[in-house]
Amino acid sequence: MIVLPRFIALLFLVTAFAVTATAWAGEAAPRGTGDLGVVVERASGRIQIVETPGMTALGSVDGLGDLSHASVVFSRDGRHAYVFGRDGGLSKVDLLTRRLDRRIVQGGNAIGGAISQDGKLLAVSNYEPGGVKVFAVDDLALVADIPAAVGGEASKVVGLVDLPDQSFAFALYDAGEIWIADLSKPKDPRIRRYPKVGSLPYDGFAVDQGHYYLAGLLGDDGVALLDLWRPEGGVRRILGGYGKGEEPLPVYKMPHLEGIAAASGLLFLPAVGRHEVLVVDARTWEEVARVPMVGQPVFTVARPDGRQIWVNLAHPDNATVQVIDVASLTIANNFSPGKAVMHLELTPKGDQVWISARDDDRVRVYDPRSLRLLTELPAEKPSGIFFAARAHRIGY
Amino acid sequence: MIVLPRFIALLFLVTAFAVTATAWAGEAAPRGTGDLGVVVERASGRIQIVETPGMTALGSVDGLGDLSHASVVFSRDGRHAYVFGRDGGLSKVDLLTRRLDRRIVQGGNAIGGAISQDGKLLAVSNYEPGGVKVFAVDDLALVADIPAAVGGEASKVVGLVDLPDQSFAFALYDAGEIWIADLSKPKDPRIRRYPKVGSLPYDGFAVDQGHYYLAGLLGDDGVALLDLWRPEGGVRRILGGYGKGEEPLPVYKMPHLEGIAAASGLLFLPAVGRHEVLVVDARTWEEVARVPMVGQPVFTVARPDGRQIWVNLAHPDNATVQVIDVASLTIANNFSPGKAVMHLELTPKGDQVWISARDDDRVRVYDPRSLRLLTELPAEKPSGIFFAARAHRIGY
Repeated sequence: MIVLPRFIALLFLVTAFAVTATAWAGEAAPRGTGDLGVVVERASGRIQIVETPGMTALGSVDGLGDLSHASVVFSRDGRHAYVFGRDGGLSKVDLLTRRLDRRIVQGGNAIGGAISQDGKLLAVSNYEPGGVKVFAVDDLALVADIPAAVGGEASKVVGLVDLPDQSFAFALYDAGEIWIADLSKPKDPRIRRYPKVGSLPYDGFAVDQGHYYLAGLLGDDGVALLDLWRPEGGVRRILGGYGKGEEPLPVYKMPHLEGIAAASGLLFLPAVGRHEVLVVDARTWEEVARVPMVGQPVFTVARPDGRQIWVNLAHPDNATVQVIDVASLTIANNFSPGKAVMHLELTPKGDQVWISARDDDRVRVYDPRSLRLLTELPAEKPSGIFFAARAHRIGY
Repeated sequence: MIVLPRFIALLFLVTAFAVTATAWAGEAAPRGTGDLGVVVERASGRIQIVETPGMTALGSVDGLGDLSHASVVFSRDGRHAYVFGRDGGLSKVDLLTRRLDRRIVQGGNAIGGAISQDGKLLAVSNYEPGGVKVFAVDDLALVADIPAAVGGEASKVVGLVDLPDQSFAFALYDAGEIWIADLSKPKDPRIRRYPKVGSLPYDGFAVDQGHYYLAGLLGDDGVALLDLWRPEGGVRRILGGYGKGEEPLPVYKMPHLEGIAAASGLLFLPAVGRHEVLVVDARTWEEVARVPMVGQPVFTVARPDGRQIWVNLAHPDNATVQVIDVASLTIANNFSPGKAVMHLELTPKGDQVWISARDDDRVRVYDPRSLRLLTELPAEKPSGIFFAARAHRIGY
């Protein structure tokens, strides 16, 4: 047996520790981030980090607060996910180290957010106290506060999306306005206001990479439309029959307008309270067809090649997903991926569709061409699914 | 002075080496890959690896052979760049370690390639010996060989793009055909042939995320169009006036059709030999306008929001870049970013345009909104610029 001189043993130990420490940091082994995504486990305040080539979960990060209606955006480099919680929480998660980098509670009741064109700013829309707050992506420091008050009254803010030219669009629910905020000078936002767009805009979305901004109205029929290439023309109303409609039905769930499906110059709008998807010509803004559904549509999501629209349905029909064939505007497929389908997300080139079946505690992955089940992953009450390639898209 | 027992010294040395090796591999520190890109230095057989937030070069990788007309695609995760050289070389570069992982010479004279929908296959189109070869992305092993011979004669292959449903489209220059290859079973490609599409198709491109495939013709007027949603309808000819035209002019450089600009339902085609960009309605395939240019257009590239089309010009006008305003179909800006502009690439959300000025040995980065010069990077005879977000797009 060899006895080491003590300080040499120490030196050896230090060196060995350095090796171990390096190996541990190697948990965050170098890898590309373009094939990553997150699954929200809403009841557990947790997200899973997933990868699409092998369709596996890499790990999870918890402590993210109330994640009902949570939405997620990604940093410009795809490394970080920013999670907007219902409780006003804004969490920055490192997808490589799988750690919560930072978390703030920025409002009392929030409804989503967006990341700026240059990837440096996060904007969050608030119900309570209303308004929009803007944060730096690095340290989540407050950069700008936009109260969104009209006539002294704070307004809930909905439908917040990023636009070209370092801008954001959003709708003021109580005030019935659309605002465009230019954050080119982050500490001095320039606001353009569009008043009287209709009663109670409840959600908004960008079309054609930020060419248009549309807001759905809870208190009026029709949809408010702003052409951002010709903003001097103001807001006009389209689709008079959209919304309450002529024969009101009970609305089980307001449809989501975020990421509304657009394909081959057509928009696919979930009807409000009706068993239909409305097909709208994005050039004339006329309705060109209605596709009958077996329930009330919630999300309409285009396959990335635009060949199909995937639709999930509200309770009591939320075990069914229907697929619209865009060429014929008919239902190509009905299928049952599980109980209480909350959300679905397609890979950026469309070879997989990931579906969260909340009441099965499963995420199921299908081949959208054959509808073959490729795999399933356990998840506690999964809701939203978001892939990191969203980092590179405008209007989310 | 301490004398170490020899084997302890050896052990120590081995441990120290392990630390060093780990630290060295730590050159590939974990980072996101969504904001990376490459700049081809064509005369030097080298690429630079760049990042867009700071607009800097991170390093370079050489030994890539003849890079004239080189093109680049990216792995599904965004970590690897695959470089298709003119000499038939296919190189796999790790953007994180900045090393050449693997290189093969797969043909005698090649003209680009594409990556499959699932990210597992690379297809390369060859002039010499003609045909298409398909390789596995991991080890560049040959998976399938598609000779593209018609009547016993091998044909040069051009215009190779990826399509949905794990397919590729390409044109046979000598045979005058368009082929669609379905690689769902990689070792057993299923080919659909469309013969007699016109004389000498010299390039091809996908429109509307793979809904259409178009091929430009060197020996005929017009463009061959295949509707991939209704392939049974076969190929038809559109734009009778496109190509040779009524008053032939000397063609200094055939325009590139890869990544042709599409915005708001319009296509922007560089005219052949004429000082014009043709604007085509992508619904009716009718020409709706011609935008006069100060020289022969080479690349027409849409700003990601579709608001502008950026156009570079052939010799002797290649020091000028012109910007078309899509709303008015007029020239919004002319400017002079440097000598011999070879290529331009916009960041995925459009906050930067990177321009290679070959004869200045510079890449210059501009704000597309203000045309303000943001920075410039030294590069030896730069040509193509490619950002990793291309990994997530169909038809490249």
